[in-house]
Amino acid sequence: MYTLYYSPGTASMAVHLALLETGAPYQLELVDFSTRQQRSAEYLRLNPLGRVPLLLIDGQPHVESGALLMMIADRHPQARLAPPLGSAQRLAWYQWIVYLSNALGASYRYWFYPPDLGASEHPAPVRVALQARIEAVWTLLEAQLSASGPYLLGDEFSAADLQLIMYMRWSRNMPRPALEWPALRRFAALLRARSSWQRLCDIEQLGEWRS
Amino acid sequence: MYTLYYSPGTASMAVHLALLETGAPYQLELVDFSTRQQRSAEYLRLNPLGRVPLLLIDGQPHVESGALLMMIADRHPQARLAPPLGSAQRLAWYQWIVYLSNALGASYRYWFYPPDLGASEHPAPVRVALQARIEAVWTLLEAQLSASGPYLLGDEFSAADLQLIMYMRWSRNMPRPALEWPALRRFAALLRARSSWQRLCDIEQLGEWRS
Repeated sequence: MYTLYYSPGTASMAVHLALLETGAPYQLELVDFSTRQQRSAEYLRLNPLGRVPLLLIDGQPHVESGALLMMIADRHPQARLAPPLGSAQRLAWYQWIVYLSNALGASYRYWFYPPDLGASEHPAPVRVALQARIEAVWTLLEAQLSASGPYLLGDEFSAADLQLIMYMRWSRNMPRPALEWPALRRFAALLRARSSWQRLCDIEQLGEWRS
Repeated sequence: MYTLYYSPGTASMAVHLALLETGAPYQLELVDFSTRQQRSAEYLRLNPLGRVPLLLIDGQPHVESGALLMMIADRHPQARLAPPLGSAQRLAWYQWIVYLSNALGASYRYWFYPPDLGASEHPAPVRVALQARIEAVWTLLEAQLSASGPYLLGDEFSAADLQLIMYMRWSRNMPRPALEWPALRRFAALLRARSSWQRLCDIEQLGEWRS
């Protein structure tokens, strides 16, 4: 049994999408960021990092969205979210999940939380540098998807795509949102057409960037 | 057949250690950072990111050290670098590899390359903030290893430990090196006693922080 601690539209979103893709039963627990519930003593006992997602699997707490995606994919092979162990596609899958966590997850963290870099607001050069780093990822993915798309693994949809659509959504109010890259826009259309996306938007009540 | 493009002591080190642990045959190609060979047209054709490690598997180029560790572990089950698919330990393994890449890999990148944040040198508050982020990881790992060590997965050594020893080495000239945390120091002693570590230091000619 799964229990997902989430906050709408945050890093818990990719894990929520993966659970919806598997069809497995799960419970949701809202972590209310407006009252800083992620920093409450009760929540910190479950997740000392004070972040979402947190996934209870049979009562045990687990974190890190990239790792949770891989684990959910392994536990539900019928959902075809992961290529077979030892295949060349499996390496590409590991690669995209680690790369996206690293290149986008970490850069967004600084983009959205200037205090993590010791500032209440970023000085202009830092802002420009972080924006350039995020846009460089869109440019790299544009080349990848136009050459070997429509998904990150080519013809095969996988859990890595759930991570990508989440990070793309986070760019919606940036100077150059990810949808300005044409192959990324085509990718978004495919992902948003899935029933998992529609259900996620209903459950998490996401109005913006739905379609 | 494996060919590892490496530079001594850099992010290629964990992958090099994993290859040594498996006993599989491999070739090494030195990428000379002193002549900026990682930015040469020839190298960028193989790896557009202009970084190491790059691993050729049967002639195909692959990147991202965390992903390469997972793939090498899967391809050589007899080396016992990965827990079995679907096990609780497997989730912990994914978690540590993604967490370390994300929390340490990304923070070190900014620590060592101020231009990535638009500066030739970090202003003091940025330096303090990045140092605090890296030290917070040592504190978290200290708690983990003293409660459930000696390895990241408890009694079982795994590829995640190879990634950790690499990141620990990178802290050696920081204000508070990782070895100041006692359980991390015990962990380092175990890793440095392995023959893979000794051979790595010989091959990559690493004098500093060897033992």
